[in-house]
Amino acid sequence: MECKCMEKPYVIGLDMGGTNSVFGVVDARGTIKAQTVIKTRGYKNVEEYVATAIEALQPAIEVVGGIENIKGMGIGAPNANYYTGTIDNAANLEWKGIVPIAKLFSEALGIPVRVTNDANAAAMGEMTYGAARGMKNFIMITLGTGVGSGIVCDGRVVYGSDGFAGELGHVIVDRSPEARQCGCGRKGCLETYTSATGVARTARLILANSTLESKLRDINPDDITSYDVFVAAEAGDKLALEIFEETGRRLGEACADFAAFSSPEAFIFFGGLTKAGDYLMNPIRKAYDENVLFVYKDKAKLLVSTLNGSEAAVLGASALGWE
Amino acid sequence: MECKCMEKPYVIGLDMGGTNSVFGVVDARGTIKAQTVIKTRGYKNVEEYVATAIEALQPAIEVVGGIENIKGMGIGAPNANYYTGTIDNAANLEWKGIVPIAKLFSEALGIPVRVTNDANAAAMGEMTYGAARGMKNFIMITLGTGVGSGIVCDGRVVYGSDGFAGELGHVIVDRSPEARQCGCGRKGCLETYTSATGVARTARLILANSTLESKLRDINPDDITSYDVFVAAEAGDKLALEIFEETGRRLGEACADFAAFSSPEAFIFFGGLTKAGDYLMNPIRKAYDENVLFVYKDKAKLLVSTLNGSEAAVLGASALGWE
Repeated sequence: MECKCMEKPYVIGLDMGGTNSVFGVVDARGTIKAQTVIKTRGYKNVEEYVATAIEALQPAIEVVGGIENIKGMGIGAPNANYYTGTIDNAANLEWKGIVPIAKLFSEALGIPVRVTNDANAAAMGEMTYGAARGMKNFIMITLGTGVGSGIVCDGRVVYGSDGFAGELGHVIVDRSPEARQCGCGRKGCLETYTSATGVARTARLILANSTLESKLRDINPDDITSYDVFVAAEAGDKLALEIFEETGRRLGEACADFAAFSSPEAFIFFGGLTKAGDYLMNPIRKAYDENVLFVYKDKAKLLVSTLNGSEAAVLGASALGWE
Repeated sequence: MECKCMEKPYVIGLDMGGTNSVFGVVDARGTIKAQTVIKTRGYKNVEEYVATAIEALQPAIEVVGGIENIKGMGIGAPNANYYTGTIDNAANLEWKGIVPIAKLFSEALGIPVRVTNDANAAAMGEMTYGAARGMKNFIMITLGTGVGSGIVCDGRVVYGSDGFAGELGHVIVDRSPEARQCGCGRKGCLETYTSATGVARTARLILANSTLESKLRDINPDDITSYDVFVAAEAGDKLALEIFEETGRRLGEACADFAAFSSPEAFIFFGGLTKAGDYLMNPIRKAYDENVLFVYKDKAKLLVSTLNGSEAAVLGASALGWE
């Protein structure tokens, strides 16, 4: 990243969600020079999707002086395999089976294209433009509808034997009979406690077990969201604070275990839940310090992503374009 | 490793234990050409230890035609830091503080010297000469007095930000009030259940809770070792088999979680406990299959080290000498 003066100065990032596909043309500092959005769904097939994308991208590419100024493209997509450049059996997309998405874009644009999943893209983005600049060992934890992770060891994302390494949201943190059912079919995954929906589940549980007064009692329990909990916490609601404490404790305990794996310089948290700030981060830090093995004590920083939330996914994907 | 014809054809490995230091001169196929042993304790200081070692090594070095045929040296030692070449505050050694062991040997021999801990050395040995030849992603689990690990991602040992990554024996697998006290000061570490001493603890617990007859009841519970459990299992003792099943279950569950980290091609088990063979490996495999996330199912092999136990530590250390 030091000197791009002799290199093509831009990359394209694509954040492919179940609904929208957001494209950005990005420079080496992480500034999005041009952006465009198309729907992800509603095409005859993936070829039609790619053709629509290429057409939509033309004006953005012209903004930076044409495709000859673009070094490569990175795609963050569900079930994306870095090794093969394919999207494999993604439940949230219309295309079934193995979709050679990197090859299709690469042939259409004439530039190298790499793909990976959202959490690995977030880690790349953080390392290239964000809180992990200059770090060679860190773990990215994304707290959204689910919990994802991107693990960087010695400056490189860990993809594992099959391209699917780094699913720390599915480490089992509770093996008791009361462990929560996870969408993956198993019970007690970290994700069931510390995703946005996990926070809502914790809210319902604490509301049922506690006699504390709370603004959250004015909401139908089934409708409570992690945002409601945040709003209540901001108003000093003790029960809401307890919900974040419980969530942070689970995350801190889990991260203490993750430290025993790769001894990272930092954990970087990203996603909607991190808006809770210290309501969440303080309990994470407390549980981490109380649970981490002595040899790792006071080593890893626990940080919140510094990338602008709405741009982070596109920036993360684009970071792959520099490889 | 393919062609060493133009390279120096031998390396030195040193397995430094609390009692003995075993040196081997090793070729690229993992054959130990010459070996020598000195005591690790009883020297005035580390310089005297190194001087004694160098003198003891001379005949072994002559066997392969002198130091000019030796490419490098690797040392496996407790609390050894790969990045700094030092042994840091090792509880089992007489030298306190930070000992620059790599520098001392390198200056005395005139060859490059690298150090790492025993479990990482075992992983290097397995990758260079053993069951992990040709693998780029695997996790070594050493089952001895403690439980150690060496994690290889993309062909490289994971050392982390500080050189101390890979302490999977201290991942917490039980957070219940009954979790076992660990020597690290915390409770519920994997090591307290699946080390040789962990097996003995499980034996005492099952003997106390069960009414099954067992040969193990003839031994004073405090004297039972994992070897006693193995001998009983060989004789068809049901309670002994139950002890290995419980041990294997804990290991299989833990490895299923580790898969979510680095999606390895294989887990390789090493150490005295693996002599239990299928008594231990079958329950590991069963628990792994039952607990691993669907995306990793039927991917990782669960293997036992193929290195000769008494030579493995020296071979593992020597593998660092090729770097």
